[in-house]
Amino acid sequence: MHLGVCYYPEHWPEDRWPEDARLMRETGLTRVRIGEFAWSRIEPEPGVFDWGWLDRALDVLHGAGLGVIMGTPTATPPKWLSDRMPDMFALTRDGRPRGFGSRRHYCFSHQGYREEAARITRAVAERYGEHPGVAAWQTDNEYGCHDTVQSFSASARDAFRVWLERRYKSVQALNEAWGNVFWSMEYRSFGEIELPNLTVTEANPAHWLAFRRFSSGQVVSFNRAQVEILREHSPGRDITHNAMGFYTGYDHHDLAADLDVLGWDSYPLGFLEMFRFSEGEKRRYARQGHPDIAAFHHDLYRGCARGGRWSVLEQQPGPVNWARYNPAPLPGMVKLWTLEAFAHGAELVSYFRWRQFPKAQEQMHAGLLRPDGEPAPALSEAREASAELARLGDAGKAPKHAALIFSYDSEWMTQIQPQGEGRSALWAAFSCYSALRRLGLNVDIVAPGVSLDGYMLVIVPCLPIVTDALMDELAASDAQIVIGPRTGTRDDDFAIPDSLNHSALQELIGGKIVRSESLSDRLVMEGDGWETSGWLDHYEGSAKPEFVARSGEITGYHHGRVRLCCAWPQGRFLEALIQHAAVDAGFGSEPLPEGIRRRTRGTAVFEFDYNAGEVRLV
Amino acid sequence: MHLGVCYYPEHWPEDRWPEDARLMRETGLTRVRIGEFAWSRIEPEPGVFDWGWLDRALDVLHGAGLGVIMGTPTATPPKWLSDRMPDMFALTRDGRPRGFGSRRHYCFSHQGYREEAARITRAVAERYGEHPGVAAWQTDNEYGCHDTVQSFSASARDAFRVWLERRYKSVQALNEAWGNVFWSMEYRSFGEIELPNLTVTEANPAHWLAFRRFSSGQVVSFNRAQVEILREHSPGRDITHNAMGFYTGYDHHDLAADLDVLGWDSYPLGFLEMFRFSEGEKRRYARQGHPDIAAFHHDLYRGCARGGRWSVLEQQPGPVNWARYNPAPLPGMVKLWTLEAFAHGAELVSYFRWRQFPKAQEQMHAGLLRPDGEPAPALSEAREASAELARLGDAGKAPKHAALIFSYDSEWMTQIQPQGEGRSALWAAFSCYSALRRLGLNVDIVAPGVSLDGYMLVIVPCLPIVTDALMDELAASDAQIVIGPRTGTRDDDFAIPDSLNHSALQELIGGKIVRSESLSDRLVMEGDGWETSGWLDHYEGSAKPEFVARSGEITGYHHGRVRLCCAWPQGRFLEALIQHAAVDAGFGSEPLPEGIRRRTRGTAVFEFDYNAGEVRLV
Amino acid sequence: MHLGVCYYPEHWPEDRWPEDARLMRETGLTRVRIGEFAWSRIEPEPGVFDWGWLDRALDVLHGAGLGVIMGTPTATPPKWLSDRMPDMFALTRDGRPRGFGSRRHYCFSHQGYREEAARITRAVAERYGEHPGVAAWQTDNEYGCHDTVQSFSASARDAFRVWLERRYKSVQALNEAWGNVFWSMEYRSFGEIELPNLTVTEANPAHWLAFRRFSSGQVVSFNRAQVEILREHSPGRDITHNAMGFYTGYDHHDLAADLDVLGWDSYPLGFLEMFRFSEGEKRRYARQGHPDIAAFHHDLYRGCARGGRWSVLEQQPGPVNWARYNPAPLPGMVKLWTLEAFAHGAELVSYFRWRQFPKAQEQMHAGLLRPDGEPAPALSEAREASAELARLGDAGKAPKHAALIFSYDSEWMTQIQPQGEGRSALWAAFSCYSALRRLGLNVDIVAPGVSLDGYMLVIVPCLPIVTDALMDELAASDAQIVIGPRTGTRDDDFAIPDSLNHSALQELIGGKIVRSESLSDRLVMEGDGWETSGWLDHYEGSAKPEFVARSGEITGYHHGRVRLCCAWPQGRFLEALIQHAAVDAGFGSEPLPEGIRRRTRGTAVFEFDYNAGEVRLV
Ligand SMILES: [Zn+2]
Ligand SMILES: [Zn+2]
Ligand SMILES: [Zn+2]
Repeated sequence: MHLGVCYYPEHWPEDRWPEDARLMRETGLTRVRIGEFAWSRIEPEPGVFDWGWLDRALDVLHGAGLGVIMGTPTATPPKWLSDRMPDMFALTRDGRPRGFGSRRHYCFSHQGYREEAARITRAVAERYGEHPGVAAWQTDNEYGCHDTVQSFSASARDAFRVWLERRYKSVQALNEAWGNVFWSMEYRSFGEIELPNLTVTEANPAHWLAFRRFSSGQVVSFNRAQVEILREHSPGRDITHNAMGFYTGYDHHDLAADLDVLGWDSYPLGFLEMFRFSEGEKRRYARQGHPDIAAFHHDLYRGCARGGRWSVLEQQPGPVNWARYNPAPLPGMVKLWTLEAFAHGAELVSYFRWRQFPKAQEQMHAGLLRPDGEPAPALSEAREASAELARLGDAGKAPKHAALIFSYDSEWMTQIQPQGEGRSALWAAFSCYSALRRLGLNVDIVAPGVSLDGYMLVIVPCLPIVTDALMDELAASDAQIVIGPRTGTRDDDFAIPDSLNHSALQELIGGKIVRSESLSDRLVMEGDGWETSGWLDHYEGSAKPEFVARSGEITGYHHGRVRLCCAWPQGRFLEALIQHAAVDAGFGSEPLPEGIRRRTRGTAVFEFDYNAGEVRLV
Repeated sequence: MHLGVCYYPEHWPEDRWPEDARLMRETGLTRVRIGEFAWSRIEPEPGVFDWGWLDRALDVLHGAGLGVIMGTPTATPPKWLSDRMPDMFALTRDGRPRGFGSRRHYCFSHQGYREEAARITRAVAERYGEHPGVAAWQTDNEYGCHDTVQSFSASARDAFRVWLERRYKSVQALNEAWGNVFWSMEYRSFGEIELPNLTVTEANPAHWLAFRRFSSGQVVSFNRAQVEILREHSPGRDITHNAMGFYTGYDHHDLAADLDVLGWDSYPLGFLEMFRFSEGEKRRYARQGHPDIAAFHHDLYRGCARGGRWSVLEQQPGPVNWARYNPAPLPGMVKLWTLEAFAHGAELVSYFRWRQFPKAQEQMHAGLLRPDGEPAPALSEAREASAELARLGDAGKAPKHAALIFSYDSEWMTQIQPQGEGRSALWAAFSCYSALRRLGLNVDIVAPGVSLDGYMLVIVPCLPIVTDALMDELAASDAQIVIGPRTGTRDDDFAIPDSLNHSALQELIGGKIVRSESLSDRLVMEGDGWETSGWLDHYEGSAKPEFVARSGEITGYHHGRVRLCCAWPQGRFLEALIQHAAVDAGFGSEPLPEGIRRRTRGTAVFEFDYNAGEVRLV
Repeated sequence: MHLGVCYYPEHWPEDRWPEDARLMRETGLTRVRIGEFAWSRIEPEPGVFDWGWLDRALDVLHGAGLGVIMGTPTATPPKWLSDRMPDMFALTRDGRPRGFGSRRHYCFSHQGYREEAARITRAVAERYGEHPGVAAWQTDNEYGCHDTVQSFSASARDAFRVWLERRYKSVQALNEAWGNVFWSMEYRSFGEIELPNLTVTEANPAHWLAFRRFSSGQVVSFNRAQVEILREHSPGRDITHNAMGFYTGYDHHDLAADLDVLGWDSYPLGFLEMFRFSEGEKRRYARQGHPDIAAFHHDLYRGCARGGRWSVLEQQPGPVNWARYNPAPLPGMVKLWTLEAFAHGAELVSYFRWRQFPKAQEQMHAGLLRPDGEPAPALSEAREASAELARLGDAGKAPKHAALIFSYDSEWMTQIQPQGEGRSALWAAFSCYSALRRLGLNVDIVAPGVSLDGYMLVIVPCLPIVTDALMDELAASDAQIVIGPRTGTRDDDFAIPDSLNHSALQELIGGKIVRSESLSDRLVMEGDGWETSGWLDHYEGSAKPEFVARSGEITGYHHGRVRLCCAWPQGRFLEALIQHAAVDAGFGSEPLPEGIRRRTRGTAVFEFDYNAGEVRLV
């Protein structure tokens, strides 16, 4: 595995560059990621390019033996460009332009900006495509960051209409699929269809789902245009992009299909603070991040990536600037996170960033160096990680234990129609993942339809739309299976099927879910050593009740090698249910101690102690 | 009492209609409500009408012996209509259009839409006005749903100016009434007056009150236009409209004056979850709704309705889709709600809806049938209710016990100027209602000025504007009277009267309220077995202190047959005060057990057990 | 010290004026503030003036022996004026106009409105500049109230560009100072720079800081224009303006530089309810206000005022209308507040307002008289205060104990970049102030660079930008010094200095802050009898650890006469640290009892008992 770092030569005097490069190498870094936000320096005036500084930076880095990951600068179009095309901005759901002054100020559907993005990509690719220092390319930066996938612009509306026509062929088919007879929402032509914002009350969920799919597709095609240019001008180099944490704005399976390697940006402390962890978890792991945050994304993005090639393109090295609170990691964590990425199969861990820039939006975001150029605490941990990796060599393939099925549209659907406040397919997946991890299991998070060969345990946390391919895989598998709430209860356009559930699912579970309730946390269902709340699917069929609350609700059924989870997958109820399935699958049922996690790779069993910030081989 | 159901034949294949109609009759239903959202099917292209399907649906339903309540489809104008008049949308308080894509996308003040609404109403009325299957008409659907009464459009502004000129005659009179000399807000002409939104800080409360009255009046006149057309083309049929729960956007007394029967839509579980009940109540009654929700609205809308004729046009049959959490009712509740409506004098209870539509915004809203056409749990409860009603026959008139005075402008005024966060006239009324109900009393909720003959107890929870007619009734009554905070402290334009309180009120209470404080819940005033907070009216006069807090505040006075409630009417303080008055009125003071309510009608005393979901005759 | 009252003769019949004036004098009042909102009465039609009523009002008041403080009416331009210049409104951050209908509906950058404001000021000044009854002038009213300093209008944008060009000379200098190379935010000309709103994610903090400075400067220059007119037409009269509580929208040092006397509006109960006091404080002091609210502002504005001349232009006399809850003050508080202002050196306490107006936005705001003209409770307290003041005479100068350094840009910077949610320089200052006050010390709150001669204790709570002048003063002082977090860590354009901290600061503290963490309240650092959280500055240097948490963090250092406060200044940690410094400075370390405060002026030691609402001389 490579170690690398994100570097902005344009932030620092040229005479410092050689020293920086030397120190990177001395630290054990072999990759350096540059260029992603440098448009205003590359093309300071429209059509006037200044390549000199970047030529020299590349030469210094290459000369020092570093492989460069070159970014396309399309996340930060310069002011002169947006002044020429003021309608290139995305519009908020409320209809306000999201203008210049930070980054990602563009609408993915704006044709003019698409042309500009292609033009600058081609310029950079032509200049450096064959440069021996360029090891790989990164497109843009963090698609969707700051909630930028959805745009409610006229460009988006026009493109959405074209997309709908392509999908549904006739407007009658669309009206039928969406049930537009309801509330007289029927359209007479595709040209009558608006974006789903600015309605009086919620728009049709089918309308929203189509818009989410369309918006995701716009990201994918925007990216593909860059990939094609890069492949043409820089053949043989890997192309990557950096995804984010707990982010589902576009379908990462679709994006990754065009990439060689899928990267992601790992900020465990910021994610702990900003996402829905409990107060107790936020206190206990304030300086470590919850022990499943990094691993969940490693396993998720490995499953998204074509060929399973993935990396960490940004690794938190110290306090960040963007969370509500920004503590420093516990000593040891930077090294722990690095080795955990290795245990999960990363090709690269690249720290963000080399040196803290003393100005602008991220001036409080730590680097490996302080703003004054002195070492920050993370530098020595990076050096130690490098040494450790050298000792470990290549650790081999990870054995298959459990597969967890996740699709992006499942999360879109629970966002569109949570039905019970806070119910989310992504968080159902995270809870199931965490319960599996606490049993010491390796987990692969895979798309519906991926081969399930070799898994002894398969969990489907919450998948409203199931595909025939997935059902075929589940039928063919001899794994223990857990089916979570809502699964198979919708067709591809968000409608409840005529037979209520997907027919193959009915076969699998020996019956069907006939109705559902969403329950507040006030309505707790308790059994022996477990409790849950939040949801109740009512089942009719031949499966046997396995979890029956004292108040009578049946929250879990057992049917051969299939378990049905009728309540929301969470807490001690979920743990108990997954332990039942794990035991039947031949695994142990004893959870690891609090804060301890394991990952088996080849013959090595890594133990990550989040309490102490330590890694052990056991 | 009739039982009925809301039905959307346009959602289902024609060949299913006869089976649906048969099953309705078998269940004991005699009324069916249709057509309210069918504009796009009735007039699929501008001016092109398709009556065939609706003719046939009517014939099927009528043929099966069901009386049809036909709706006007004006809550859901089709896309082609709004494309022709893009300024027909209401604007939000922030100035954004509330566009197509759900329902109620129109501004009540838009002249063009008013003409379109009249045109489609006339078309439907001409077609079916004399049809023997049409038993009644419903105008539009849930005026004000999704907060649609107030619109901040140019149409609304222009109409508001006309309304103001009609009310005040001269702009000098308006300036004087509103006190516009304050902050130099004086106008030189009606044409200078804007809507009260988009001001730097709060607008003049008198400005808001006028706008609330105007907006209410626009609903009333919009509705009246339809009523006039229906009366012309369908003489002899009842005309109704379906009001909502805890909703005060327009004056229901005014609307009901044009209707024969006032309906309302009863969703006790959703209302419990979405409105300001305590955590304890939300837990205890999650599957029943608070025991006073349905009854409060029955008694409120009976008091609004011309001639006291009212019905439940939509009755919750299972989980809804629109609350934060959507649990299923406890077994027995659908029957209980039905019989409670009967006990309060309803003419009809109509379940919403026949069959759960598997698509669009309400796909998670239960019906009497599941989406697959099989019976949902409520079907058998409807059948049992029907049998029970047959046994009961006509139960006679309800004896008069207590009257509770409520006006819509009182709630508008506390919304405009809560003064202490969360203080609301509607919720003061609900609290007083609940305290009376826990004593087993029948309660009539009536408008100020209605005859108070025959009542032994009269409560005025919070009525900033008192009318001479009300004061005359109170003076003439020999009931025990309770006067709540703020009562009589404002003139008709929101000004404090020169003498501080309405003069007849001063006579009644033997003095006056000279100043008021609003108190947070942190400042608790406690006495023997009671406590309260939230408000303190300071009284000067000859009434005797009856409730004195340990900290010295006087929260209640007694003056002959009048009691003055100086703190906010809530909690154990309110219970104690109402018990004092009830005893003096000759009633018992022992509250019913938790979750038990009674209603006397004729010789029958119904007992509703919300704990068990059971109804008993005692 | 004068006592006065705010009076609106235009609200009342002319024949009541003499009685009001007589009663004011009888109460002991000698000043009356009028005219501030009367534009629509002074100029009812464009260019048509009606001076008669105001001439007569002035004569009545003057005739009764009252000195008049005349206001310019520019906070409330009439409707006809805004109709002529619809673009005079400020725009919200979201881009919505803040229109007519309340007050302060103007953009400080609108040239047309500036001319109108000058025109009406000149008219009033010409009319009354030499009137013998006019004792002083007040410009406008509460600049910034309702968040009106920042406007995102085209006028503001244009003026901002001019301001930037004046400050930075070249756009290259601006790009360099702001670090615009980051995210390609570089500008090619000043004309390319937008306002910092409507960006995709946060704008550059340097951009915001510049905009805050610009916006503040617009207020100052708007005010200066009026001051110049008043000085020309009414020479020799004091000019004042009324500042607000806990408000930092403009730099009050800069504004006060143009005034003779700085006034402020003291509403302790409303401020307690609306600002960030704890639940316990809000309960305990609901009827008194936190005991440091009034004093903090007295000492802050005395430090802002040129020559230290200040007054209370509005004093709360009873419940207000604008807080979440509006209780009445404890009996005695109006007198206590009055005498406390005297103890802190006020020239005037003016009650707001004479008589409660029964209409419009402030109809629930108490006065010295009720709406019916009868005395409200505060009237007798004002009379008692007047008698007490007569007994006290002139109490002499206050001895210097502690100085507390505060700058408005420090608060802007923590608002722009709180980094840890809720961290605010203003509240750091308030906490330090309160800790000093509980030790019975006199505190002066002064701007950086003011002479520190004579102080034995100097606190710098949180001052990201330190000036050379301040550092010189600190170096020259022999006081005990406390340096709080973030101090000296930014240059004048929000950048971290190359050497991390201001170099003179490094000398003072014998080292430097090398990195910082923000911590949630979940991460508590505890020592012997103290605990804190919220922030941790990491220090490297020769100072000695003084406060070391059990978990190892060093939250305080000691270096000669300097203490370094590395955690957030709050709670028992702050108390302990300030006690250490106070003891070293020769003061006692025993805090006053809860609710008791002291102020020494001349030979008198005033003791204010907030528990009982009493003032004692000790
Ligand atoms: Zn996918
Ligand atoms: Zn009414
Ligand atoms: Zn200053």
